[in-house]
Amino acid sequence: MTIRHIVEVGQFDRNWVESLFDHADRMRHLNAERAPLHGRILATLFYEPSTRTRLSFESAMLRLGGQVISTENAREFSSAIKGETVEDTVRIVAGYADGIVIRHYEQGAAGRAALASPVPIVNGGDGPGEHPTQALLDLYTIRHELGRIDGLRVALVGDLRFGRAARSLARLFCLTQNTELLFVSPPAVPMGGDVLAALDVSGVRYRIETDLARVLPEVDVVYQTRIQRERFATPEEYEASRGHYVLNENAFAQLARSAVVLHPLPRVDEIAPEVDADPRAAYFRQAHNGVFVRMALLDLLLGQ
Amino acid sequence: MTIRHIVEVGQFDRNWVESLFDHADRMRHLNAERAPLHGRILATLFYEPSTRTRLSFESAMLRLGGQVISTENAREFSSAIKGETVEDTVRIVAGYADGIVIRHYEQGAAGRAALASPVPIVNGGDGPGEHPTQALLDLYTIRHELGRIDGLRVALVGDLRFGRAARSLARLFCLTQNTELLFVSPPAVPMGGDVLAALDVSGVRYRIETDLARVLPEVDVVYQTRIQRERFATPEEYEASRGHYVLNENAFAQLARSAVVLHPLPRVDEIAPEVDADPRAAYFRQAHNGVFVRMALLDLLLGQ
Amino acid sequence: MTIRHIVEVGQFDRNWVESLFDHADRMRHLNAERAPLHGRILATLFYEPSTRTRLSFESAMLRLGGQVISTENAREFSSAIKGETVEDTVRIVAGYADGIVIRHYEQGAAGRAALASPVPIVNGGDGPGEHPTQALLDLYTIRHELGRIDGLRVALVGDLRFGRAARSLARLFCLTQNTELLFVSPPAVPMGGDVLAALDVSGVRYRIETDLARVLPEVDVVYQTRIQRERFATPEEYEASRGHYVLNENAFAQLARSAVVLHPLPRVDEIAPEVDADPRAAYFRQAHNGVFVRMALLDLLLGQ
Repeated sequence: MTIRHIVEVGQFDRNWVESLFDHADRMRHLNAERAPLHGRILATLFYEPSTRTRLSFESAMLRLGGQVISTENAREFSSAIKGETVEDTVRIVAGYADGIVIRHYEQGAAGRAALASPVPIVNGGDGPGEHPTQALLDLYTIRHELGRIDGLRVALVGDLRFGRAARSLARLFCLTQNTELLFVSPPAVPMGGDVLAALDVSGVRYRIETDLARVLPEVDVVYQTRIQRERFATPEEYEASRGHYVLNENAFAQLARSAVVLHPLPRVDEIAPEVDADPRAAYFRQAHNGVFVRMALLDLLLGQ
Repeated sequence: MTIRHIVEVGQFDRNWVESLFDHADRMRHLNAERAPLHGRILATLFYEPSTRTRLSFESAMLRLGGQVISTENAREFSSAIKGETVEDTVRIVAGYADGIVIRHYEQGAAGRAALASPVPIVNGGDGPGEHPTQALLDLYTIRHELGRIDGLRVALVGDLRFGRAARSLARLFCLTQNTELLFVSPPAVPMGGDVLAALDVSGVRYRIETDLARVLPEVDVVYQTRIQRERFATPEEYEASRGHYVLNENAFAQLARSAVVLHPLPRVDEIAPEVDADPRAAYFRQAHNGVFVRMALLDLLLGQ
Repeated sequence: MTIRHIVEVGQFDRNWVESLFDHADRMRHLNAERAPLHGRILATLFYEPSTRTRLSFESAMLRLGGQVISTENAREFSSAIKGETVEDTVRIVAGYADGIVIRHYEQGAAGRAALASPVPIVNGGDGPGEHPTQALLDLYTIRHELGRIDGLRVALVGDLRFGRAARSLARLFCLTQNTELLFVSPPAVPMGGDVLAALDVSGVRYRIETDLARVLPEVDVVYQTRIQRERFATPEEYEASRGHYVLNENAFAQLARSAVVLHPLPRVDEIAPEVDADPRAAYFRQAHNGVFVRMALLDLLLGQ
């Protein structure tokens, strides 16, 4: 399978994902002299700021020997860009760069960009839509930490209704075998029926849970996410929910020795800093893995 | 003629422009290994954002093997820069970079910068003043598309009174032979008398027109520009004017087969997307040409 | 002495400073082919904009053959970064870069970053706290202009109470011999007692002065700084103070032939442009020296 643009998780098949991950493994030890993307330029076209995603892609491109042109906040900055269609902007920027990472506040913007663009487009997050490279680096981290992506029991925890990262990762598990997903959220923000339907089609088992403490001893992976105050009707409801989903030393004590804890970051207080030094706390390694996965992606899309 | 700073269209003579364009032609096929500006740094000092112009210059510098330091919105960002004269800022940044592209909201700012600067300055647009590299890439595109810049009949269409791009391009035609310019605009926003006077001095013929449809069949080039609502006394006047100056399939049907349509972009609705695939629609190629013209310019100013 | 992070002036000893300055001298003539930091990436993580400091560090990194990833205004831009601790942000960015320059609006932020970071941190200014690389480039400029940093009489002029640059430079003089500092300020904004106490401990002599004119004939260095209107109770008090501390042709006429005038820049009107061409006006050379000092620093921290 050849992929020209990265728009959504649904594009990927198992072979492609595995070979991407193998390539990411090689990227961990890339010699700076190799510079496979020497002479190539990546544009990071961010209509809304996302420092982490942008810097991660830019670091990846530079580590491959390429160069970067960048706009950090196109929506605010450029009245020109504001009035113009994404299609036009992408056609123009394609004259300046060999590939474009686009971050947009509107769902579907990356797909429209891909249709118009003569150069590869990577979706760096389109509003409430997709963030496919986040899901890839999450699954890659599981493979790198545990050695496999099949046969795992994975708890996805927090705001599963609005959390884009958890939704995309759940979809990506459709490519795995013998997986059981445990959706652990306050009742107000459950995993969406669209994702559950996709899992049903792919034969991925799942359970709906609300009690994190009960779930912890039996899982291989905890994927923790933020719960946002504004999703709740009253501050009281929010406070009542929140406390039940905090990972601290007590929670870690219930985890298996071989389990790992991931988080797309940033965290607020849903993971206590007291567990950061625990070897099972993999979230900073996960952020770092983003560079290797994006190096592998950019090399696939822009290399010879 | 040696040019050290690029401030305004009036600096150029025919030989310099031709040799710049020849150099831009060579830039289309520059080998990435060549890197004539290796080890040199360009600062893009933008007091107001202009994503397109900035990324185009940055891409040009990187393609030449150079490096870039950049500020996207100096006016908003830096209270320090806000309180300081352009001359002081430029003297300081000249210690960080080998050349400076300046974009400023005040007419004349680029000229003042050039007087103060120990390194080459390029005017990337100074308020209602000049945008000389836009005019150069426009004329270069005409040469690249049609093979010549003399003996052409060119319609400049839209807001000719406030449109900086059309004004600068009209002035640049003073360097050509046997040109006829057709100024096609609503009566409220005609081409300024200062430009007409310059054309008179240079012997460039021109006609004032208001009816685009009548003009289309007889021209080699249509240079379309935006008409801005705020230039009109009432919304009704604006709406009445606007519709007459739209390039759509009907308009293209009246154009000669060999004609080309340019636009400095961004467009709003003055060119219908339905004609984008017509080979005469040259505006995205024109934007791309900006990189080659700016490569040629930077190489002339900063190379050995 | 090995220094891993640059947080505050108090870290430095005389040998380290001298060897840094020797290295900065070498950087003036670095061959672009050398590229000692080839393949390395510096992140400039600016929570508040400071175009000058940022571009100076970025130019330094690029001149060493390294690469840069950058955020110009993290506080405004990234709601994610806003809610997260500096420690978390730094741990994540350390996965993208080999070193981090941090500029923050809170005193102590750079120190906290250094404690959390697996890669070298450089303090690019933390609120009312420290700006150690400014102090280093100031003292380096004195050495470069006068050939020595001992046995000098130095006037620090302007707002000495709130001026971070003057405070840091005064502290750095603790490493010198046989220095006399003259603190010349309006009575409302004197040099702080904490700095005076540090000078007492180190045996640096100093005098408190208010009359700039009287001091000028006897000093080797004038370090001029801004006086900010908002530090004064009334506009009248401000106006009364300000005029006495302006360096113009009259003031320069009283300076020794071999004296030099420095300023951290930007200036408003405390140095008249009429003296810019005087060879004793060293402030633009001082800004340029910032690149060489930062090259030396980055090479020490990030090189082999």
